[in-house]
Amino acid sequence: MATLKDVARRSGLTVGTVSRVLNNRGYISEQTRQKVYDVMRELDYQPNEMARSLSKKSSNTIGVIVPHIVHPYFAKIISDLEQAAYDRKYKILLFNSQGKDEKEEEYIEMCKSNRVAGVILCSDTFQTEKFRNLSFPLIAIERFLDEGTAGIECDNYRGGMLAAEHLIGKGCTCLLHIGGISNHRKPADERKEGFEDVCRREHVEYASEESSQLLYDEMDYYSIIGRLLDGHPKTDGIFASSDVIAAQVLQVCARRGIRVPEQMKVVGYDDVNVASLTTPGITTIRQPVKEMAEAAISMIERASGGEMVPSRSMFPVTLVERGST
Amino acid sequence: MATLKDVARRSGLTVGTVSRVLNNRGYISEQTRQKVYDVMRELDYQPNEMARSLSKKSSNTIGVIVPHIVHPYFAKIISDLEQAAYDRKYKILLFNSQGKDEKEEEYIEMCKSNRVAGVILCSDTFQTEKFRNLSFPLIAIERFLDEGTAGIECDNYRGGMLAAEHLIGKGCTCLLHIGGISNHRKPADERKEGFEDVCRREHVEYASEESSQLLYDEMDYYSIIGRLLDGHPKTDGIFASSDVIAAQVLQVCARRGIRVPEQMKVVGYDDVNVASLTTPGITTIRQPVKEMAEAAISMIERASGGEMVPSRSMFPVTLVERGST
Repeated sequence: MATLKDVARRSGLTVGTVSRVLNNRGYISEQTRQKVYDVMRELDYQPNEMARSLSKKSSNTIGVIVPHIVHPYFAKIISDLEQAAYDRKYKILLFNSQGKDEKEEEYIEMCKSNRVAGVILCSDTFQTEKFRNLSFPLIAIERFLDEGTAGIECDNYRGGMLAAEHLIGKGCTCLLHIGGISNHRKPADERKEGFEDVCRREHVEYASEESSQLLYDEMDYYSIIGRLLDGHPKTDGIFASSDVIAAQVLQVCARRGIRVPEQMKVVGYDDVNVASLTTPGITTIRQPVKEMAEAAISMIERASGGEMVPSRSMFPVTLVERGST
Repeated sequence: MATLKDVARRSGLTVGTVSRVLNNRGYISEQTRQKVYDVMRELDYQPNEMARSLSKKSSNTIGVIVPHIVHPYFAKIISDLEQAAYDRKYKILLFNSQGKDEKEEEYIEMCKSNRVAGVILCSDTFQTEKFRNLSFPLIAIERFLDEGTAGIECDNYRGGMLAAEHLIGKGCTCLLHIGGISNHRKPADERKEGFEDVCRREHVEYASEESSQLLYDEMDYYSIIGRLLDGHPKTDGIFASSDVIAAQVLQVCARRGIRVPEQMKVVGYDDVNVASLTTPGITTIRQPVKEMAEAAISMIERASGGEMVPSRSMFPVTLVERGST
C-alpha cells in the first residue's frame, strides 16, 4: 500500500508539501496540487482516515443509537440520518440498544473510544448519568434528556389534536386512544394530551389507554387491542400512537367483522411505509422525519464547531388522509 | 483527558507495563492488572480505539452497504447484522448506496481509508471492477459477485418451487409470478425458475412477468399490478417476489373487489414485518435473514484471520402460511 512518503518521493516534493495539499493547508500552487493528485492516482494512494482522525482528535463518524432497527419508524430515521450525514461528509456508526440501559451505556463508551464527532440518540432509557460530561455533542430525537446538547421532536401535542379533530369531523362520537409504552415520560405522551383536550372541548366521549403490556419490542399489540375493543364496545374512532399499532387495529377489526372505515375509523401516527401498505391505507399524522434527521446532523456539525444550537426544537406535523377514515 | 502516561505515572508502573495490561500481552500479575484497572477507573481513562486500530492496521468496524434502508427486507438485514456484529465485538458503519454505482464506489473508498475489517454488500449494481484487489474480505448477500470473498444467498429456486406447489395445492389453476427489477442477473431470479418448473411439471397455466417499470426504489408497484391483472384476467393465484409487492397486490385486489383468499390467493417472499401487518396476513417464503447475517459477520472474522471460507453459501427457505392463501 502506497504511503505519504511514496507520494512525496515520486512527485519530488517534501512530505510536508504533500501533507499540506491533502489537508488543504497553506499556500500551494495549482501546478503542485495537480502533480500530487496525479501521483496519488498513479500509486493508488489511500489517505488513512484513522490516522487523520487521530491528529484531529475526533473522527468524521457519528454514532446513532436506536432501540430497534426493523421498526419502520426507526428504519426511516436511520435512512434519513444516513442521507443527511452523507451530504455533510459524515459516516454513521449504527448501534441497536434494544432499549436496554446497559447496552446504551456500552455504546456510549464505544463512541467515546472511537472519538466520534457526536452521538444521535433515538433510544429511550431511564438512566441519564451516562450522558454527563461527554466530550462530543449528544442530540436526542423524540426523547427528553436532562443531559446532552439538544432534543429534536415533532409537535406531538398538535398531532394528537389533529387526529381527534379529524375523527370528530368524520362523524365519530366515541373515541379511543391507544398509546405506546409508558415506562417513563417522553415527548410522544403529549399526543394523548392533545387528543384529550380536543375531545373535552368538543364534548365527545373518549377513553385513553396505554399499558406496559403493549409489547412494543415485539410489535405485537393484538391481545391488548382485543381487550380494549371489548372494554369500549361503543368505540367508532381509534387514534393509535403508531402506524404499526394502527395496522394491527385494522387486522383485529377484520377478524371481528368490523368494517373500516364504515363502522370504525382509524388514525395512526408517523406516516411510515406500513401506513400506505395496509388495506385500507392508514390515515396518519406525518412526522417530518427527513427534516428532523437533517437538523440532528447539522446540529452535531455546528455544536462540535463550538456554535450554540437550540436545546429543544419542535417540528410541525400534518395529517395524511387515506382509506381508514 | 487522561493518557496512557497518566495511568502509568499514577500507578507507579512503566508505560510498557500498562500497555501490556491493556493489550493482554505477556505475563502480568493479577495484582498489577488490578492496580492498572483501578487507576484507569479513577482517572476515567478511555483507551483510544483509533490509535489501537492504527497499530493493528485494521479496525473492528465492518462496512455495510445496502441499496435501501426503509425497505423492510434491508431493515431486517441491517438489524440482524448489527446484532451479529455486536456479539463478536464489531461495529457497523452503515452506507446507503441507493443502487448507484458511483455511490457504491465512493463507499468502498471510504471503507478502505477507514481500514475496515471487511465489507458486507447487499447492494446490487453492475460494475464490479471496484471490488478488485481489496485488502479486506468482501461478503455479498443475495447478489452475484465475480470479485470478492464470498456470496451468501437463500435457496431462491426452492422458494419459487414452494410458492407454486402451495398455490396449486390450494386449488389455483392459473398462476402469475410478479418479479422484481431485472436490470442484471441476481440470485432472486431463480425464484422464477423454481416457480415455472413446478407449473410445467404440474401442467398448470402460468405467466411470469417482470418489468423494469416496477418501481423498486419507490416501492410503488400499483400500476404494473393493475396492468398485469388486466392482461391475465383468469389469474387465481399470485406469487410476488417480495412481501412489499404482495401487500400492494392485496390493495389492488381490494380496490377491484377481488376477495383474498376466496377469489385470489397470494404468496409473498422474505417474511418481513409487512407480511404479518396486512389484512389478511401474507403467506410467504421465509428467508433465514438472521442466520445469513450471522454467517456474513462470521465469514469476515474468519477470512480476515486468514481462514478459507466457502465462496458461496445457500440457506434453506420455508413457507409460512397466513390468511392470503
